[in-house]
Amino acid sequence: MLTQSRAVVFPAPHAKPELRLYPIPDLQPGEILLKVLLTEVCGTDVHLQQGRLAGVPYPLIPGHVSIGEAVAISGEVRDVEGNSPKVGETLTFLDVIETCGNCWYCLVAKASTRCPLRKVYGITLGADEAPGLAGGWSEYMILRAGTKCLKLKSGVTPEAFIGAGCGLPTAVHAIERADITLGDRVLIQGSGPVGLSACALALLSGAGWVGVIGAPEFRLQAARDFGADFTLDVTTTTPAERLKAVRDATGGRGADIVIEASGNPHAVPEGCDLTRDGGRFVIVGQYTDHGDIPLNPHLQINKKQLEIRGCWGSDFSHVHRAMSVLSRFGGRMDWSSLISKTYTLDDAGQALDDVANQRVVKAVISPGR
Amino acid sequence: MLTQSRAVVFPAPHAKPELRLYPIPDLQPGEILLKVLLTEVCGTDVHLQQGRLAGVPYPLIPGHVSIGEAVAISGEVRDVEGNSPKVGETLTFLDVIETCGNCWYCLVAKASTRCPLRKVYGITLGADEAPGLAGGWSEYMILRAGTKCLKLKSGVTPEAFIGAGCGLPTAVHAIERADITLGDRVLIQGSGPVGLSACALALLSGAGWVGVIGAPEFRLQAARDFGADFTLDVTTTTPAERLKAVRDATGGRGADIVIEASGNPHAVPEGCDLTRDGGRFVIVGQYTDHGDIPLNPHLQINKKQLEIRGCWGSDFSHVHRAMSVLSRFGGRMDWSSLISKTYTLDDAGQALDDVANQRVVKAVISPGR
Amino acid sequence: MLTQSRAVVFPAPHAKPELRLYPIPDLQPGEILLKVLLTEVCGTDVHLQQGRLAGVPYPLIPGHVSIGEAVAISGEVRDVEGNSPKVGETLTFLDVIETCGNCWYCLVAKASTRCPLRKVYGITLGADEAPGLAGGWSEYMILRAGTKCLKLKSGVTPEAFIGAGCGLPTAVHAIERADITLGDRVLIQGSGPVGLSACALALLSGAGWVGVIGAPEFRLQAARDFGADFTLDVTTTTPAERLKAVRDATGGRGADIVIEASGNPHAVPEGCDLTRDGGRFVIVGQYTDHGDIPLNPHLQINKKQLEIRGCWGSDFSHVHRAMSVLSRFGGRMDWSSLISKTYTLDDAGQALDDVANQRVVKAVISPGR
Amino acid sequence: MLTQSRAVVFPAPHAKPELRLYPIPDLQPGEILLKVLLTEVCGTDVHLQQGRLAGVPYPLIPGHVSIGEAVAISGEVRDVEGNSPKVGETLTFLDVIETCGNCWYCLVAKASTRCPLRKVYGITLGADEAPGLAGGWSEYMILRAGTKCLKLKSGVTPEAFIGAGCGLPTAVHAIERADITLGDRVLIQGSGPVGLSACALALLSGAGWVGVIGAPEFRLQAARDFGADFTLDVTTTTPAERLKAVRDATGGRGADIVIEASGNPHAVPEGCDLTRDGGRFVIVGQYTDHGDIPLNPHLQINKKQLEIRGCWGSDFSHVHRAMSVLSRFGGRMDWSSLISKTYTLDDAGQALDDVANQRVVKAVISPGR
Repeated sequence: MLTQSRAVVFPAPHAKPELRLYPIPDLQPGEILLKVLLTEVCGTDVHLQQGRLAGVPYPLIPGHVSIGEAVAISGEVRDVEGNSPKVGETLTFLDVIETCGNCWYCLVAKASTRCPLRKVYGITLGADEAPGLAGGWSEYMILRAGTKCLKLKSGVTPEAFIGAGCGLPTAVHAIERADITLGDRVLIQGSGPVGLSACALALLSGAGWVGVIGAPEFRLQAARDFGADFTLDVTTTTPAERLKAVRDATGGRGADIVIEASGNPHAVPEGCDLTRDGGRFVIVGQYTDHGDIPLNPHLQINKKQLEIRGCWGSDFSHVHRAMSVLSRFGGRMDWSSLISKTYTLDDAGQALDDVANQRVVKAVISPGR
Repeated sequence: MLTQSRAVVFPAPHAKPELRLYPIPDLQPGEILLKVLLTEVCGTDVHLQQGRLAGVPYPLIPGHVSIGEAVAISGEVRDVEGNSPKVGETLTFLDVIETCGNCWYCLVAKASTRCPLRKVYGITLGADEAPGLAGGWSEYMILRAGTKCLKLKSGVTPEAFIGAGCGLPTAVHAIERADITLGDRVLIQGSGPVGLSACALALLSGAGWVGVIGAPEFRLQAARDFGADFTLDVTTTTPAERLKAVRDATGGRGADIVIEASGNPHAVPEGCDLTRDGGRFVIVGQYTDHGDIPLNPHLQINKKQLEIRGCWGSDFSHVHRAMSVLSRFGGRMDWSSLISKTYTLDDAGQALDDVANQRVVKAVISPGR
Repeated sequence: MLTQSRAVVFPAPHAKPELRLYPIPDLQPGEILLKVLLTEVCGTDVHLQQGRLAGVPYPLIPGHVSIGEAVAISGEVRDVEGNSPKVGETLTFLDVIETCGNCWYCLVAKASTRCPLRKVYGITLGADEAPGLAGGWSEYMILRAGTKCLKLKSGVTPEAFIGAGCGLPTAVHAIERADITLGDRVLIQGSGPVGLSACALALLSGAGWVGVIGAPEFRLQAARDFGADFTLDVTTTTPAERLKAVRDATGGRGADIVIEASGNPHAVPEGCDLTRDGGRFVIVGQYTDHGDIPLNPHLQINKKQLEIRGCWGSDFSHVHRAMSVLSRFGGRMDWSSLISKTYTLDDAGQALDDVANQRVVKAVISPGR
Repeated sequence: MLTQSRAVVFPAPHAKPELRLYPIPDLQPGEILLKVLLTEVCGTDVHLQQGRLAGVPYPLIPGHVSIGEAVAISGEVRDVEGNSPKVGETLTFLDVIETCGNCWYCLVAKASTRCPLRKVYGITLGADEAPGLAGGWSEYMILRAGTKCLKLKSGVTPEAFIGAGCGLPTAVHAIERADITLGDRVLIQGSGPVGLSACALALLSGAGWVGVIGAPEFRLQAARDFGADFTLDVTTTTPAERLKAVRDATGGRGADIVIEASGNPHAVPEGCDLTRDGGRFVIVGQYTDHGDIPLNPHLQINKKQLEIRGCWGSDFSHVHRAMSVLSRFGGRMDWSSLISKTYTLDDAGQALDDVANQRVVKAVISPGR
């Protein structure tokens, strides 16, 4: 019988990650005990270790998007189709829980990603909060009652799902807000997991041209493998060169749609310039506060009649659509190929370092290895 | 027979306005000779005199929105309803002409306010360009063939139309992009002609609360006369005080919709803060380049999931809707009351000075006086 | 101590309503015991008595929109603002409960009014279903845990709220789907509670003209009291006469937006004709199945490039906006004036008969009288 | 020097097509003489021969979408990119001209496909109207001044362009109104040129599943060749069987989006049934009046909260996007394969008969052969 789980924990901001042993409590009704198969290491985990996000309850077991095998289920649980997951099945889940469904943001504004009661596995659920085991960098996780679960759809491997990771649902949300019309020319700023998924989704949505600005070269190669028409290395070009290159590729006008997924705040004014007059600019990459940047509201917003759409997090519909995308298009776009390296729990520190230094496209942890 | 027209001209950037005599040429087919009844003096005219707009062909007769009596019509002219204007009728017109209807922006992007061939009476049609008399600060104007004319609708006086001026169609465009839902709380930044019209239109659109931030006090009084629930003097409050006051008035969340109509670039980051999470921020006031301002893309756009919509100029639909608004709601909202003072052509310099120094809500010129 | 409640019940389809005594059970956590002040008698109640709705669990206590005083509250209850209602306060509530928030319609399609688990007080919650007292035609109601409550906003009387009844939130939903632009000409088909509220909301949304087709005359008078520009008695005019009259009033083109709120299926093809080419037609009144009607898809949909939007029920956002509308505009539009007569529980049969025969605009029951 | 052109003409409704000789007049400024390479025979041509369209000025040279070589150009002509076409180049053009750009529909409603002054080559421009040669079933055509021309984009053959024909821009318009979100399940009713193009575009837009209902089998095969997941022969199945089959393929709910492109009016109520609750139904195929059909507004529109969007004709943006689609995706989707047979002018009667009897997917005429 399972009584404890090894887990990596961030003890406090800036502290080194540690391996700890946590007890596995008895399950309460509606809870699921998940044996974690794969969990991702994302840029947010680097920021969590560095203490750059507000409102994080340390100590914290990181790992917001994970996939595992249900080893115990207490009471009745149903997925969105009304089916009950079974012990032995491979499951994933929406990392956001306790989105209340009862507050003004959820019910009146219908902006559930801004619900003030929202909690996120691996980010805002602390290691010491009962029933514990709320992050994926652990042998076992406990899914709280009300967690929205999802079985892997036909043809979707755990590797493809975790290779897509949190980047794919985030990109599904960004693409929804980008509202691409068949033939639109779409530029992506950033070649990390969100940017690469946005590149793939723009191609799948019928964009007439897709360009990616990013680095390093092996990430740009991943973009071209997905089918990008055009890549530019941000480390070896100037903003003026990039503006010229994008205009040359888009009839002199700039991209119809630009999606910022870089995390670099200077990408924001540059993205305004790269969008054509009357175009749309989705900002999804500014997940962390890097301070102010200069912007010219006359030239970069008003006179261009630009539409800028901030995009925060993702809700269940985006995870659900992400699963459909993987099932339908996984043969054409291989998200598992984004996994550069698979680590053990013991190597979590190395995984973090590799992500922080962009040595990998996607790092994943297999806690059972 | 009419052979010449007195007109005020801006000879060059920074030069003082001069009164000149221009010949009235024979009309070509499709042209209309208009005896100007009233024409406005707007903030853009101040900027034109100061040489702050790019691409202006000096010498220039200013006056983009005007109203006059048709004194001669050459050949066949039809309005949008298929009717022909007649000599003796009081007419106004869309100040934008030569919007080509044949270019990529007009036909494919459907963003005619970004058409590169667009010309504007009183702004980008020079005094020396045939057939001349292309601005309203003149006894007579010649409306080019293809100019989109409009008769005053039932109940609309010349004073109400020119009191509304270019601010009303601009505000109609901004309100269209603001997409107000019944009961939304709407904040307007700026209490000039665009801001005051946006305030009136938000009230008419069923906003649940309308606040205005501006100055000086007599403009804020005009906002309250329209029905604003709340005004704040921007010259005697700090941004933090304004943020607190707006949050207190909006259930602690900020306005559902903010419309920037101030022209002050620092209103842009402040407007982001004043909008609630998931809200909409329309930027219409940044008509002139005042340089860069600092903006935090994480806190002010991405995390808030803000939608920002730039709004440039107006098209014929906005002038047409403006006329409908004046006809229907002119009894409830008195736009003629915005006219603080009516000047002669000889006083145009004084009118400019009064506008530049915000001594008036709206200055208008009656060239025939 | 309260032990029982008198209530009107529909024993079975077509059966006459009966007065019965129901026990008041002990409250479970999250439940509220409401002493009903006012409850409405709506056209749906007539259909319920006639057995025209599918899936209704008779015996049934009707009364879906009600307002009452909280006389007991068990455990913790919070409203959308996070506040807890208190004993003695006057409350209303969303009549829809058990909208699951966990199914495909709620989470992926984001169409909660189509959630298959949705239950409605007074319609699909039977009298024999524990804990009972689920309809407003009763001295007391028990609000289930999770019911979304709402306090009356400043300035809203119980009479105004119940005069508006279920018609106002339904009309808020219809107006949301109508997406009125300032100055649009809007035609309402139907002058019952939904039609009259849609008329009021169209006026408040800045419509340039609002017409109402309906009957009998005292309901059309109520429309004109709200400010309708134009009314037509459907019982004394032919479809051809109505088409001509509406075209004459709308520049020959038909209304920009038509809202069907009549319940008569023949209003649907007529509404297509009354909408201008490229216009929008919202169908909200077809709440009951009255069989097929003939429609010409070439002339009435395709060639006109018509947009038709079905509109079913309402969600919490619509009730919340309805409350805001009553609070802000109740002085200008007096919804309490729609109450033609207030009945006791003993008179419920008469109230039903008066509604069925359109002898009243709005009938309400005051169970405590 | 060219002095005359052989052309097929429909002398009057129901009359057999005749070959006639027409003089080629001197070109006026802005006109282009086009040597027709390929022109299509579409279902509308069958209806024109049968006299089923209102307002057609017989005698008529049919052929609305054509492609040809410019053999003479008079004066200055510019395309939307500002370039001038040159003699010897292969051109196509928007078949709609004299869309006024000055009327209420064009300027205020922004619904140019409903402009009352709109004329269409091969449909509403008669053979006897100067300067003549206004249809594609002719050796030569004269493009009027103001006709919006388009060069073939890189990689687009005349065969691919004409194989796509008028069906592709119409389908681009329908897909625009369908507003597909990544992963949506899309059903197409009809397997003619519009239906097949809509099938291809839905696939290119990232639909998660695309089904086609149509006939005969070789057209369904063409749909499967494009990549359709599912086809159903309308001639060998009942509506109940089709409803069951579509629900089985869409999680029991019906398609998220249905596009009617069949021309059969009974497809309209069936399409309502095939769309899921809260889904979208685009009606583009009802180009000809086939009378009334029965529809249940309660069950088929209101209760489902269905959104129905009529879609009429296409504008230049749709032709422009169609060209981009052919250029980008022509390798993946071979529109030239839709051409079942190429006819001479002498065989035009046979071509009409083959189209009328659905013996071909697409019939084209090569007037020079």
